[in-house]
Amino acid sequence: MSKLPDINKDFSDWYNEVIFQAELADHGPVRGTMVIRPYGYAIWEEIKSVLDNKIKETGHQNTAFPLLIPESFLKKEAKHVEGFSPELAIVTHAGGKKLEEPLVVRPTSETLVHHMFAKWLKSWRDLPIKINQWANVVRWELRPRAFLRTTEFFWQEGHTAHETQQEALEEAELMMGEYINLAQNYLAIPVIAGIKSESEKFPGAEKTLTFEAIMPDGKALQMGTSHLLHQTFAKAFDMKFQNAEGENCYPYLTSWGVTTRLVGALIMMHGDEKGLVLPPKIAPIQVVIIPIFKKNSDNKAILDKAHEIAQALKKQNVRVFVDADESKSVGSKFFKWEIRGVPLRMEIGPRDIENNSVMLADRLGLEKAPVSIDSLTEFIPQKLEMLQHQLFKRAQQKVKDMWHKGEKLKDFGPKMAKDGGAYQTGWCQNPSCEQELKKFKAFTRCLLPEKTLDVCFWCDKPSITDVLVAKAY
Amino acid sequence: MSKLPDINKDFSDWYNEVIFQAELADHGPVRGTMVIRPYGYAIWEEIKSVLDNKIKETGHQNTAFPLLIPESFLKKEAKHVEGFSPELAIVTHAGGKKLEEPLVVRPTSETLVHHMFAKWLKSWRDLPIKINQWANVVRWELRPRAFLRTTEFFWQEGHTAHETQQEALEEAELMMGEYINLAQNYLAIPVIAGIKSESEKFPGAEKTLTFEAIMPDGKALQMGTSHLLHQTFAKAFDMKFQNAEGENCYPYLTSWGVTTRLVGALIMMHGDEKGLVLPPKIAPIQVVIIPIFKKNSDNKAILDKAHEIAQALKKQNVRVFVDADESKSVGSKFFKWEIRGVPLRMEIGPRDIENNSVMLADRLGLEKAPVSIDSLTEFIPQKLEMLQHQLFKRAQQKVKDMWHKGEKLKDFGPKMAKDGGAYQTGWCQNPSCEQELKKFKAFTRCLLPEKTLDVCFWCDKPSITDVLVAKAY
Repeated sequence: MSKLPDINKDFSDWYNEVIFQAELADHGPVRGTMVIRPYGYAIWEEIKSVLDNKIKETGHQNTAFPLLIPESFLKKEAKHVEGFSPELAIVTHAGGKKLEEPLVVRPTSETLVHHMFAKWLKSWRDLPIKINQWANVVRWELRPRAFLRTTEFFWQEGHTAHETQQEALEEAELMMGEYINLAQNYLAIPVIAGIKSESEKFPGAEKTLTFEAIMPDGKALQMGTSHLLHQTFAKAFDMKFQNAEGENCYPYLTSWGVTTRLVGALIMMHGDEKGLVLPPKIAPIQVVIIPIFKKNSDNKAILDKAHEIAQALKKQNVRVFVDADESKSVGSKFFKWEIRGVPLRMEIGPRDIENNSVMLADRLGLEKAPVSIDSLTEFIPQKLEMLQHQLFKRAQQKVKDMWHKGEKLKDFGPKMAKDGGAYQTGWCQNPSCEQELKKFKAFTRCLLPEKTLDVCFWCDKPSITDVLVAKAY
Repeated sequence: MSKLPDINKDFSDWYNEVIFQAELADHGPVRGTMVIRPYGYAIWEEIKSVLDNKIKETGHQNTAFPLLIPESFLKKEAKHVEGFSPELAIVTHAGGKKLEEPLVVRPTSETLVHHMFAKWLKSWRDLPIKINQWANVVRWELRPRAFLRTTEFFWQEGHTAHETQQEALEEAELMMGEYINLAQNYLAIPVIAGIKSESEKFPGAEKTLTFEAIMPDGKALQMGTSHLLHQTFAKAFDMKFQNAEGENCYPYLTSWGVTTRLVGALIMMHGDEKGLVLPPKIAPIQVVIIPIFKKNSDNKAILDKAHEIAQALKKQNVRVFVDADESKSVGSKFFKWEIRGVPLRMEIGPRDIENNSVMLADRLGLEKAPVSIDSLTEFIPQKLEMLQHQLFKRAQQKVKDMWHKGEKLKDFGPKMAKDGGAYQTGWCQNPSCEQELKKFKAFTRCLLPEKTLDVCFWCDKPSITDVLVAKAY
């Protein structure tokens, strides 16, 4: 293990290197694929566990739809196939033979799910249908990046069908609300929610809700989306139901998803020169206990005490690990758990046992102080809560420092292109003005739910709503 | 919904129809693929949850390896590619271009995992490596069957590397022990464990441990396997480590897996003429409460009481569901939850409330009797325990009735070919004798750990160990 690249100078190198050194992931042999290693996967499991509960609490049920989709299915919705075909991986041979029809490795499952919904749906009594799946998808990436853009990635995709447009819209908004809750209250990442422009929305959707985070290098990261698909897909798949009046109707559909990209967001949002900094609520290990063995001391007593404390904390639902490996130095253990972003480090040596205390250091670098052993089961859960809160506050401040109001693109564009940053500006919603952003390597990220500027950032027409523009991952 | 086919006459039709009517799964549009619907997936989630805990408790960590494997990787281990190539699905095009090297959709991940192990492994200090993944795999099936043989299926695959052969063998045996525990103590399926013959073992393995169940139609079902891969794969992937003496050595590898086939085993083992019968420990719903609404009665009081009971049971970790749908008749609800195999049905009507009792019926058909409401939180968990036990006993009896000792294949073969059944017989371990079984549609399922017969079932040579022979899924 070597020193990490300077996070302030080489953010991109720092990102790649921290993933490798903290053993979150490694490159797979096929270009753009990633092996998620145990520590990286444990973070994803924590995220999954939180979100899976929310998905179930809001009345959705998990399912598993097939990986392989007949190529013809994607062609049924014209904009959908246009959006996805450059990214598809195609199975042409199977079982030793050339297939009659090529199969697509799913880039997303709308077409297959809707084919099945059309088969199952008969009456208004069958509605709403509210399902989800945790799955892998494949989209051929030209510029792969671990966790952010990989040829194969992991996600959940929710798919629902409703009787009315209003109900479908409420569903899309409900799940966006759950995503924002996950981001802010668990990942400690402040986000901006809004609506995608026509050119940025999901291929085939009526309306795409998005939530975006501003990373410390000044680029926006799309964290996830929730789509009102309206009736377009229902018509493409001839999905009808009989309403209470006996009429045949098309249902209104939604789909929504977040991916392993959230792990990338966590790394970037909170990391520092020493490595990861994980929010306690999703840290696989919240407290690491490092026994400080000394020559000529009762090391067994130290180890026993460490395990005794660990057991007591586990009973309080604290995720704790005792690093008792005697072949490694204390220094190398500090390094290992710092780069892995464990929120609290507890040191316990012979002197500490005499004093009935431990030395406690937090990963945010706010404090290192002795704490009485007797108070730990009460103190640690509170301290973790506090760190969670402080991490969110710190992230909010980072975003605030990068947030600007911009009136005219020609004025703020050059600075944005050079330094990044999030610019709130006015927009007439004409796609030709949106195109001008590309000259500054930027995009509209989302329409904002307020209007504070009168004129479009490019032309002189009135602005319809404010819009967030930024460079993007 | 219509009546199920006769389970005693048309077991195979019954199996297909119960899966469809209980909404466990449906056919996907690509031949041999399956959509696992919410109720089917909930069963799989219960199984996953039990096993995932055991996998972690025994020191393994979850990971995610890529779906797509370079075709050349499979060719590195000669027997492995020979075994899998007829079943492969091949991606030849991606991102709009023909690929330089075709990619295989993983049929299993040994080759990819070992490629990565070779990259990570340096020293004996890195050993053992003990990882697992929950993943989808694709094997092109000529005779697909829901849950039992599908083109895509779900499984966990564990992969480990060890310093010594003894340690690797202990690992393979440890995980087989966990599988048997899962089967017998959770799925309530009695199993027979043993070793696969040379011709039946995993392509490339040194030794394959297997556990088999005997289904009510007299066929054996391979429930899962655990392989000692020895050093063959390590050599194929040039995976070496430096031992404590500084010498370069090849590690000893294992792999082990169980699949969504376990859901198929559950359906077959316990089902009856009314549908599924689920063991309480893995039933997604353990108790369904059906309020009996009457005209001119206080239906709100009934519903409130039903929810009150449900809440009290949930606090005891009982998985309970109140079916309060007023648009459905009581009869149709009985039918729905019977075919879905819910272990306990609780009826509660106006008369029951007066008597402060409910009517409780178990899915095994052992009893239907009133139970005092005050005793429910104590009684229900005990009753579920008891049903779990009774279901296992019943399954043991079914297997016992199908278990035979056979001396000479020419004598027992015709009956086995006609009626199925498990035959314990002697074998000289010569593959040419094993070939004779195919004339009776049967196979060796596993070598048994005892020797009770002196002579081979086919030739006149001495038997080495007893072997289980049967027709198979």
